[in-house]
Amino acid sequence: MQFELTKEYLEHLNGAVENGQQAELDILIDGLHAVDIAEILEEQTKDEAKAFYLVLPEELAADALVELDEDTRERFLKETSSADIAEKIIENLDSDDAADVIGELSEEQQDEVISHIEDIEHASDIIDLLHYDEDTAGGLMAKELVKVNINSNVATCIKEIRDQSEEIENIFTVYVVDDNDLLQGRISLKKLLLAPDNNKVEDVYTKELKLVKVDSEGEEVAQIMDKYNLVVVPVIDEIGRLLGRITIDDVVDFMREESDKDYQMASGISENVESSDSAWVLTRARLPWLLIGLFGGILGAQVIEAYEGQIQLHPETAFFIPLIAAMAGNVGVQSSAIVVQGLANNSLGLDGIWKKLFKELLVGLINGLVLGSLIFAYNYFFSEDLTLSIIVSTSLFAVIVFAAIFGTLVPLMLDKYKIDPALATGPFITTVNDVFGLFLYLYIGYLMYSV
Amino acid sequence: MQFELTKEYLEHLNGAVENGQQAELDILIDGLHAVDIAEILEEQTKDEAKAFYLVLPEELAADALVELDEDTRERFLKETSSADIAEKIIENLDSDDAADVIGELSEEQQDEVISHIEDIEHASDIIDLLHYDEDTAGGLMAKELVKVNINSNVATCIKEIRDQSEEIENIFTVYVVDDNDLLQGRISLKKLLLAPDNNKVEDVYTKELKLVKVDSEGEEVAQIMDKYNLVVVPVIDEIGRLLGRITIDDVVDFMREESDKDYQMASGISENVESSDSAWVLTRARLPWLLIGLFGGILGAQVIEAYEGQIQLHPETAFFIPLIAAMAGNVGVQSSAIVVQGLANNSLGLDGIWKKLFKELLVGLINGLVLGSLIFAYNYFFSEDLTLSIIVSTSLFAVIVFAAIFGTLVPLMLDKYKIDPALATGPFITTVNDVFGLFLYLYIGYLMYSV
Repeated sequence: MQFELTKEYLEHLNGAVENGQQAELDILIDGLHAVDIAEILEEQTKDEAKAFYLVLPEELAADALVELDEDTRERFLKETSSADIAEKIIENLDSDDAADVIGELSEEQQDEVISHIEDIEHASDIIDLLHYDEDTAGGLMAKELVKVNINSNVATCIKEIRDQSEEIENIFTVYVVDDNDLLQGRISLKKLLLAPDNNKVEDVYTKELKLVKVDSEGEEVAQIMDKYNLVVVPVIDEIGRLLGRITIDDVVDFMREESDKDYQMASGISENVESSDSAWVLTRARLPWLLIGLFGGILGAQVIEAYEGQIQLHPETAFFIPLIAAMAGNVGVQSSAIVVQGLANNSLGLDGIWKKLFKELLVGLINGLVLGSLIFAYNYFFSEDLTLSIIVSTSLFAVIVFAAIFGTLVPLMLDKYKIDPALATGPFITTVNDVFGLFLYLYIGYLMYSV
Repeated sequence: MQFELTKEYLEHLNGAVENGQQAELDILIDGLHAVDIAEILEEQTKDEAKAFYLVLPEELAADALVELDEDTRERFLKETSSADIAEKIIENLDSDDAADVIGELSEEQQDEVISHIEDIEHASDIIDLLHYDEDTAGGLMAKELVKVNINSNVATCIKEIRDQSEEIENIFTVYVVDDNDLLQGRISLKKLLLAPDNNKVEDVYTKELKLVKVDSEGEEVAQIMDKYNLVVVPVIDEIGRLLGRITIDDVVDFMREESDKDYQMASGISENVESSDSAWVLTRARLPWLLIGLFGGILGAQVIEAYEGQIQLHPETAFFIPLIAAMAGNVGVQSSAIVVQGLANNSLGLDGIWKKLFKELLVGLINGLVLGSLIFAYNYFFSEDLTLSIIVSTSLFAVIVFAAIFGTLVPLMLDKYKIDPALATGPFITTVNDVFGLFLYLYIGYLMYSV
């Protein structure tokens, strides 16, 4: 059902390419999707990939190029002449993919490639799309769509759809515009098929239509399409003219990128990396958060140093340092994760910030009471040291409540000031809570021992 | 563009419902999507929601019910008679949504509701769907689809599509089957519109088609649709008969649930919760991981206790306990997150386990060297204590390398034994690395001080 790439397959394929066995090759790639081809190209060595790419059918090769990792695609484009990029790749792609590919080239080469595109309409679509920021609706949309005039009748309409649809892979929805190209609504193919030929479009179209403005953020587009289960959404300009359409496949990628990013932030990874990236890229993505952790650790060391005398007198205080620090971190991460996910899913509801903090306080109090009692019982029965039992349990309680509130407050604040709340998750919140938790613990110890 | 629910709107709406101002109400809900209605119902009190639901247009009300949280939907269904559920809700829904709603009722009530459905075909579709596990392709699919016989010609085909499409909201793809209902391929509406009337389907259809088997896991369906950018995928039975189709909107929810779950696991939350859930539900979801953390903290306390004498002699050793524990945790979380995400995205590539571990070793070595040198420099210049500097930096180095390897190995192992690798992220890996890191640190201290 789904293509599975194995080492044996790859060897077989490389052999067929190397020996020019076209018939063998045709069998091997029969039924493969561009995504599969891209997967193969990523796994091949540079030379193998180059040889394989050259023997692929032109359209499949162009589609596979779009599916490649940015780095690999750059490598391929570098080895292809501008004329070949225009004729073999760009001409075979929809305007949105074509613009994405061209957008990755240098300004100079962009002009060169565009000058080689023979289909003038295609070239002008691409030039239009290159103006938009790639993370906005304009950057995500394709110009290819089917539209009909609101004043035409069903028969003209079907004829027009036949003409327009030749270059479009999936129609999905037919848009209805007025004489000024202002978007009026949509008409489903089903309705067109069912309506009598002489009906006016005006009488059968649907006004109800979700749409996005060309300067909307990609995230907003993804949210609307997700919320309303849309497969395709039209894009309009400032005065309501129909510019293009965005299909869900472009936005699914966007949604995944967003949630991947949040996940990586929560795990202390600062760049979008994959397990298959080089050790160097992986290290670079991980060091920043580790440095924050190191800095926090040094602060923690200074806090403890301030209580050196106390630890020498009561070394048992040191036993529970990791417990306090770990619990502070864990609770903070939980609280911030719930807020960050709520913000991402738009599911925080109408409750104000105070109500949320109050609920988090309640959660913190329950968790703090349960865990504080458990650790009290453990210490009381195993160490039989009442003072230590009180110090550890009361400070664990206080630390949990503080960490819960702090973990909720920080991402809400960041979001209020338009900073990505995911920044507050992971190592950052852990580190802050660690240091503050330590201080609280040792200070409560100081108070208890000086009674 | 997108409906935004405000307190003012809600008050306005509740007033209109209470006072029976139908005209006012029509204006207020004009253009609202079922998703928006569901959002309103979730924010209203029980009585307000009940009153509002009763004055909604029947079809909108049915669609909104599908979009509600499971708990809220259960509340509504409890207050509705079986006859009303059948006639007002089920008759207005597609078979997949209808089956999902009925599937949430008790066995007894299921039979009662089904006996009230007047459309026999609809009822039998629902009964078919109820047999499938809700997380499999069978549970996700709808029975409504458009199919044509491979032996018919384009004109018959278009006529048939008109007949079949009356009850289907979006056609997307027309499936081609043989006389035994075995799936042969697909034919796009575009091709049908462009082909001459007397062409045979056989000559214009596309054999190339991604499909899923009825017993495939939901996750697998989501993966295929995501990988191949599919909007809709057909479902076949064991011998290849066409049973239904799955549209991407059902799978987008599935994909989000999966990634939400991974994120929550990494943050130490054991159930699928939302910020708007009650304090009790939130506490229940968080306590399990905190208990693991508490247990780890107690283990850590015992490790330190074993070195009590050493801490009394050299209390400066205690200063760096939180640093070592925190770094061990952070590195472990980073490593496991990269593996978990790679497994989820299917982007781990063909490298074997040893190659991955070797790369992780390299990353750990670089990070360990950088951070170990930094902490050595800090300690050497600020504490001027060479022994302590050596103990802290060598153990930080060792702990980072160990945590990186361990964080990579555990999720890979879990995945190999078909256990959710996300279990290995978050508090679990942090806790294990904490305890082991502490032991390593204190043991290295013991070795150094006893020289």
